[in-house]
Amino acid sequence: MLDGLRGVIDGSELIGIVNTGDDLCLHGLQICPDLDTITYTLAGLNNSETGWGLRGESWRVMEELEALGGEAWFRLGDRDLALHLYRTQRLSEGASLSEVTAELLAHFDVDVTLLPATHGALSTRFTTPELGVLSFQEYFVKHRHAVAVSSVSFEGASRATPAPGVLDALEQADLIVISPSNPIISIGPIVAIDAIREALVRRRDDVVAVSPLIGGKALKGPADRLLEELGLSASSLGVARCYAELAATLVIDALDGDDAASVESTGMRCVVAETLMDDAHSAAELARVLLDA
Amino acid sequence: MLDGLRGVIDGSELIGIVNTGDDLCLHGLQICPDLDTITYTLAGLNNSETGWGLRGESWRVMEELEALGGEAWFRLGDRDLALHLYRTQRLSEGASLSEVTAELLAHFDVDVTLLPATHGALSTRFTTPELGVLSFQEYFVKHRHAVAVSSVSFEGASRATPAPGVLDALEQADLIVISPSNPIISIGPIVAIDAIREALVRRRDDVVAVSPLIGGKALKGPADRLLEELGLSASSLGVARCYAELAATLVIDALDGDDAASVESTGMRCVVAETLMDDAHSAAELARVLLDA
Repeated sequence: MLDGLRGVIDGSELIGIVNTGDDLCLHGLQICPDLDTITYTLAGLNNSETGWGLRGESWRVMEELEALGGEAWFRLGDRDLALHLYRTQRLSEGASLSEVTAELLAHFDVDVTLLPATHGALSTRFTTPELGVLSFQEYFVKHRHAVAVSSVSFEGASRATPAPGVLDALEQADLIVISPSNPIISIGPIVAIDAIREALVRRRDDVVAVSPLIGGKALKGPADRLLEELGLSASSLGVARCYAELAATLVIDALDGDDAASVESTGMRCVVAETLMDDAHSAAELARVLLDA
Repeated sequence: MLDGLRGVIDGSELIGIVNTGDDLCLHGLQICPDLDTITYTLAGLNNSETGWGLRGESWRVMEELEALGGEAWFRLGDRDLALHLYRTQRLSEGASLSEVTAELLAHFDVDVTLLPATHGALSTRFTTPELGVLSFQEYFVKHRHAVAVSSVSFEGASRATPAPGVLDALEQADLIVISPSNPIISIGPIVAIDAIREALVRRRDDVVAVSPLIGGKALKGPADRLLEELGLSASSLGVARCYAELAATLVIDALDGDDAASVESTGMRCVVAETLMDDAHSAAELARVLLDA
């Protein structure tokens, strides 16, 4: 979505506030999957086939780690690992996650600003009847989100405060977009931080959310499944229930156009548009819809 | 030296007590250069040209880290990195350094036992008139030991206790060999641990040390320079002054045969032999000298 917006607005005008609830420490390394995936994507280096990691990546370290009997379920490519080494070293030297993020963006010549939602310890947790409480990566990667979830929580959210610049960005933005990410586990951790939630409530008229569902289904990941499992319904209505308090407008896909009335029943305005971003053109088109909305 | 001893004694009869004073945390990873170099050497995987790291190593991660502007002066090859990821993860799970060391030796099919001298935090520190206090790797790798040293200390040594098995090994061994390593910075940190030093003093008659000097020079590294700088003299006598309290016998190289009388003036018995281990045969020959001594 940020890449699409960059198709119609100068990148230096864009600030992305990024989920850190998936972050993990593995092998001693501080790994921030969402910050990294967005950085790689904006740098044009992302692997669009896998949806994560770098294009043309090599796997020397992971192969050897696997041979050693180490934890290899979370795949870390060689170039990707270098970034985690860099971040971990810089954090150990006292740099903040925002500073390291800015350094990496500068290295990759990305003009968009990315801010972690918080510097605090905020961890998404899944309660599963079958396997107990799972971390994000256990749920998402290890078990490939193929396990029933009874609740989702954000450990540390009540103590977490927004990272520097986040509240200013939310106060001063002309438009705030909630991207078509998973409302529960990608947007959820961000808006679980009280001050961020309150800022969105204050700016509600200028907040446009985009539903991640197309024809009632998530393009990838478990958004539809989780909406259903948590009793919100896997539909535009379920998404609207997540955002009604925070956003005045919900953009839904043309394939879900029949849901417009149910979305509006939550007090949101509903805009119907083509939301599939399968190339730069369609992404820029959706970005224009948001600016017009 | 352990490899040479393995040429004449079954590896399962050998226990190596290994210096941990060089260990470092870099990029969040727990790195134990001496344990790793010895493990790789006993596994036949060491790079004999560099004297560290693995043969046929690749450098994908390090190249990328360098491009990112990260700390790349301490070279970590891709396969080597996998071992550090493994160790760091296992330690974070609560395994001890001895346990992880045993797991790695088993993985590489090495039958020799290696024990870290201590699980405690023991760090070799160099006071330099020019650059202040340096860590081991700053001194050794970053500045290539080309900086004057006024004193060497072992931070944490007074609180460090021997790792499990170390004292038993010293009490029960038929023979204790102090390898031809640097007396000050490779053996020094081990014998800076009181209980280890005391065990050696008790077993002095069964302790044989090998001088690392050949013709008054270190084969590699700064042993000669440090002996001189610390006022011990870069000679067999300087080495004997380091070990006289701990070992009854010092083996010196034939090229230093004239030093025998000065060695014996310290109260040590002196054995003159060929100490250059440039192949398996010469290493086994030296091992036989030790067994006979």
